[in-house]
Amino acid sequence: MSGAILILSGPSGAGKSTIIRQAASRIEPYYFSISSTTRDPREGERDGVEYHFLTREAFEAGIEAGDFLEYAEVHGNYYGTSLAPVYKALAEGKLVIFDIDVQGHRLAREAMGDRITSAFITPPSLVELERRLRERSTESEAVIEQRLTNAREEILAIDEFDYVILNDTIEEAVEDFVALSRTARLKVGRRECEALVGRWLGRD
Amino acid sequence: MSGAILILSGPSGAGKSTIIRQAASRIEPYYFSISSTTRDPREGERDGVEYHFLTREAFEAGIEAGDFLEYAEVHGNYYGTSLAPVYKALAEGKLVIFDIDVQGHRLAREAMGDRITSAFITPPSLVELERRLRERSTESEAVIEQRLTNAREEILAIDEFDYVILNDTIEEAVEDFVALSRTARLKVGRRECEALVGRWLGRD
Repeated sequence: MSGAILILSGPSGAGKSTIIRQAASRIEPYYFSISSTTRDPREGERDGVEYHFLTREAFEAGIEAGDFLEYAEVHGNYYGTSLAPVYKALAEGKLVIFDIDVQGHRLAREAMGDRITSAFITPPSLVELERRLRERSTESEAVIEQRLTNAREEILAIDEFDYVILNDTIEEAVEDFVALSRTARLKVGRRECEALVGRWLGRD
Repeated sequence: MSGAILILSGPSGAGKSTIIRQAASRIEPYYFSISSTTRDPREGERDGVEYHFLTREAFEAGIEAGDFLEYAEVHGNYYGTSLAPVYKALAEGKLVIFDIDVQGHRLAREAMGDRITSAFITPPSLVELERRLRERSTESEAVIEQRLTNAREEILAIDEFDYVILNDTIEEAVEDFVALSRTARLKVGRRECEALVGRWLGRD
C-alpha cells in the first residue's frame, strides 16, 4: 500500500505526544515529521531526531525552492517544516504523521491535498484541559493562561478536520489513533484513483 | 459517542458479506441496514433479519413520507431502503452499516450528508474478480458476465468514496474494515461540531 499523511492538531495539553508514543509500536512503517531549524543543537539533541539542523544557507535555499510548508524566523533563527523528507517518506510507502497547529493543517491541505487524513485531538472540555495543564505544573501561570487562550481559538477550527478524538481516557484515544493510522492508508487521492482504475481494468 | 454511518459498496464478489461477518464480533454496537419489501417471506426468512416485510399500504405510506432512500418495483413487489430504522439506530448511538451499490451511495450522501464514511471494496483486479466469481460457481455464465460488466462500470465511481479497501487477503481486509468502523465514529458532522464546541467551552 502506498504512503499517506495523517495530521494531528489540538491544544497543547491534549495528549498528542503521549498518544503517538503509546501507539508507535502498533503502527508501521511511519515517519514522524520533525521541524527544521538553523539554531545550534542543544546538549543531547541529535540531527534528524529532535530537529533537522540546517545551515542558514541550506534553509534559505529550501525557502527559495518552496520546500517549506511553513517557516518563521524567531530570535534570528529559522524554524520550519520541510516537505523534502515528507515526500521521501511517502515515496517509501510510509505513513507520514504531523503534529502541527491549526494554521499548519490549513497549509498542509493546500500543499498536499486529498491524500491527507486529519484529526483534532482534545480533552473533553476546556475545564478538563485546564485541569491537565495545571496537573503537569511544568509551566508558569502566564504560559498556562496563554495555552488556554489559544485552545479557545483552536477549538473553533474543529470542523476543518476529518475526525475528532475526544481524549477522555488515554487507552481509548490510543485505539482511535491506531485505527486512524490504518484507515489513513486506505484513502486514495483523485490522481491515484485514475492509476488504480487503469491497473484494475488491466490497462497496463 | 454518537452514532455514525458506514457505507460499503463494491462489485458483487468483492467479499463484502464475508468481511462484515468476520468483523461483526469486533465492532459494537452496530445496526446493519436491511432492505424493506412487500413480497411474502420465503421459508425460513424472518422479519427484520433478511428483510423488513411490509404491507403494500405501509410501503406506499413510507414512499409518501419520503422515508425511502431508494426503492423500486420489481415483478409487482416493492423493494427499498427505509431510513426510519436507520435514524432510530443512529439515535441509539449505533454505527449504521450499509451494503449498497454506487447509486445508493450517491443517494445516501445527499440524504445524510457529512456524517457518512464510505468505502469501496474490491478485489485487486478485474481478472481476480472473475476468478473468484467462477470459483464460487454458484451462478450461471450469463449472471457472471453481467456482474463483470457491472463491475467495470462501478470501478469508475471509486473516487466518490472516502476509502478503498483492496480485498487481496481477507484477514487484512477485515482489519481495514474494523479500523474504519472505529474511525467512522470519530467523524463529526458540521452541525455536531457546533454543539461540541458549545459543550467544550462550557456554554451549556
